[in-house]
Amino acid sequence: MLEPLARIGRDPATGGYVRDAWSEADMELREWFAGEAARRGLDLREDRNGNLWAWWGDPAARPGVVTGSHLDSVRQGGAYDGPLGVVSAFAALDRLKNRGVTPARPVGVVCFTDEEGARFGVPCMGSRLLTGAIKPDRALALTDDDGDTLADVMARAGRKPYAIGRDDETLATVGTFVELHVEQGRALVDQERPVGVASAIWPHGRWRIDFRGRADHAGTTRLADRDDPMLPFARMVLAARAGAERRGVVATVGKVHVSPGNANAIPGRVSAWLDARGADERDVRQLVAELAEGMDVKEESWTPVVDFDAALRDRLARVAGGDTPAPILPTGAGHDAGIMAAAGVPAGMLFVRNPTGVSHSPDEHAEQADCEAGVVALAHVLEDLCR
Amino acid sequence: MLEPLARIGRDPATGGYVRDAWSEADMELREWFAGEAARRGLDLREDRNGNLWAWWGDPAARPGVVTGSHLDSVRQGGAYDGPLGVVSAFAALDRLKNRGVTPARPVGVVCFTDEEGARFGVPCMGSRLLTGAIKPDRALALTDDDGDTLADVMARAGRKPYAIGRDDETLATVGTFVELHVEQGRALVDQERPVGVASAIWPHGRWRIDFRGRADHAGTTRLADRDDPMLPFARMVLAARAGAERRGVVATVGKVHVSPGNANAIPGRVSAWLDARGADERDVRQLVAELAEGMDVKEESWTPVVDFDAALRDRLARVAGGDTPAPILPTGAGHDAGIMAAAGVPAGMLFVRNPTGVSHSPDEHAEQADCEAGVVALAHVLEDLCR
Repeated sequence: MLEPLARIGRDPATGGYVRDAWSEADMELREWFAGEAARRGLDLREDRNGNLWAWWGDPAARPGVVTGSHLDSVRQGGAYDGPLGVVSAFAALDRLKNRGVTPARPVGVVCFTDEEGARFGVPCMGSRLLTGAIKPDRALALTDDDGDTLADVMARAGRKPYAIGRDDETLATVGTFVELHVEQGRALVDQERPVGVASAIWPHGRWRIDFRGRADHAGTTRLADRDDPMLPFARMVLAARAGAERRGVVATVGKVHVSPGNANAIPGRVSAWLDARGADERDVRQLVAELAEGMDVKEESWTPVVDFDAALRDRLARVAGGDTPAPILPTGAGHDAGIMAAAGVPAGMLFVRNPTGVSHSPDEHAEQADCEAGVVALAHVLEDLCR
Repeated sequence: MLEPLARIGRDPATGGYVRDAWSEADMELREWFAGEAARRGLDLREDRNGNLWAWWGDPAARPGVVTGSHLDSVRQGGAYDGPLGVVSAFAALDRLKNRGVTPARPVGVVCFTDEEGARFGVPCMGSRLLTGAIKPDRALALTDDDGDTLADVMARAGRKPYAIGRDDETLATVGTFVELHVEQGRALVDQERPVGVASAIWPHGRWRIDFRGRADHAGTTRLADRDDPMLPFARMVLAARAGAERRGVVATVGKVHVSPGNANAIPGRVSAWLDARGADERDVRQLVAELAEGMDVKEESWTPVVDFDAALRDRLARVAGGDTPAPILPTGAGHDAGIMAAAGVPAGMLFVRNPTGVSHSPDEHAEQADCEAGVVALAHVLEDLCR
């Protein structure tokens, strides 16, 4: 089922995926989702925030068991981060149907919109809006690299920007949420297990730091007369790494804009995005406070630690693990399941082994046999949760 | 005359100019040039490399005295760098005509194409091609940020890419070249003089340095497992500044591309452009060699020192200065006049005072009275050279 997806938004030069929210690629992905729902006779709904839901059974009658993930991608991302969870959701439903299971509760497949935040900078936008974790006004005013707002691009896609925001009616249909995802580290490789269960999501955030200086000529401006923002930016990059090492957290600068960006001019501004995460919120906060001192810093997103529901976590590990309970792992990656859990929805996650641990890269990979083990585990989990 | 030019390619958000070679703005600028030539009854020619020439008199009869500059801009540049030289050239011709001067030699106004190299990375492309300082094959294969080659964009503009290259016929029409330019430092402010004359152009070059690492997830990849190219890049930025200070040269990193550029992913590649210049070529070369050690470095351009013709320089200073010879200054900026001089054409430059010294920025400025003094000086120079 990953096959027809594989061509959508793929950069032939790199093999990486570019699947920004509300882009043409996203529209094709949504059509693919609608087609898969229709082929199975599922009831397709798009909520006010652009999340897609495909239902087996009527969630108005009784809160359902929902699984799924997202189809958007970081830029130049891999084929598995997101899509594996959606494809496995449909495949697990097929497996239940083939085995003649008639679930006692409605079962839903969800595709959350804009999980990566590649376009507007805020990850998990679909689940944040659904649960009210981000205010509609703030979301609509976010701009992409072309200066278009989320309101602009949703309107162009024929959606109603004014209708977005917390959606209790849709939330009420989700009795339990289980997200399957490719692992983004190597814990399962080390433990020689194909499938694991999430214990917690590290607290994590994203900050934009603007360094301002004075644009000037690269040849005629004496060093002493310069106000070059590239220098404090470079010092921040090195300080972020050193501070992260000292505190046992991770910090990354993966996106930089230099303005105006002439090879023969001192820049007037350097904008850098800092991503920082760790097991302990205080360490992350202290690192950012230290780096941000005296700087123009804007918090673009902050997600506190998420401890997944312990009873559900243990149930997933027991059911998904076969003879031996599946290993339980924390993760440094944010997920829609974390947003749902933070909003009080019983939620959990299954991870599928990643042989290299590499993610957010065209090199991201999962073995076919492990993907199949993930589908089997997810089907067992859904059947168990529907009892 | 700067007025109708002021709207072309202007970014209303910043007040800066974006006038890439062969862009729509460039086409408008060329039309403006053709209109000014036509209004004066000058004979307009575009040479094989896209440089525009407007002649008063027939340069086939006798090599002419040529003045002018360029109309393209660095991105988010100012209104004077380039256009002041072209506008002053036309204004100086008007002044000669109004005074009833009939030059004994043909007088030409030139607009060199793509002086800044904002689009393809190589500055002074028009004069380099004209004089054979760059090979046509190399030039045509250069790509812009969209991946279009110079060959592509010239063909789209209706030009013949296969015809570019050294053009002896056109070169033979240039007996002497004098370029007027806004000063890009504050030497004239310090000396309280409106107009100066160039002595030399510092040797200068531009290098692209590619730092390669491994794209990966910003949250789940342990620091010890990372191969993050942002770190060596940041170290290079700081080393470039420290090395430039130590050697008494200037070094600038004004353009950076981060790939894939996701806030939540370790980048796979950082590409940086280093601009370095100084009075002594050895200092510049040593700095780059030191920074480049073990790196993937490509020299995009290199211009050796240019010492302008001493007799012409002194003649310009005497004629342009009025009662006291105009001050003689070296400059760290590259110019078409430098390329022409390096090709053996007698060439010189006039500088017009810049009250702040700021250039390659929307804040670039020159006072009206100084611009007028520049025109008067240039008219005197042309009259003198035509004797």
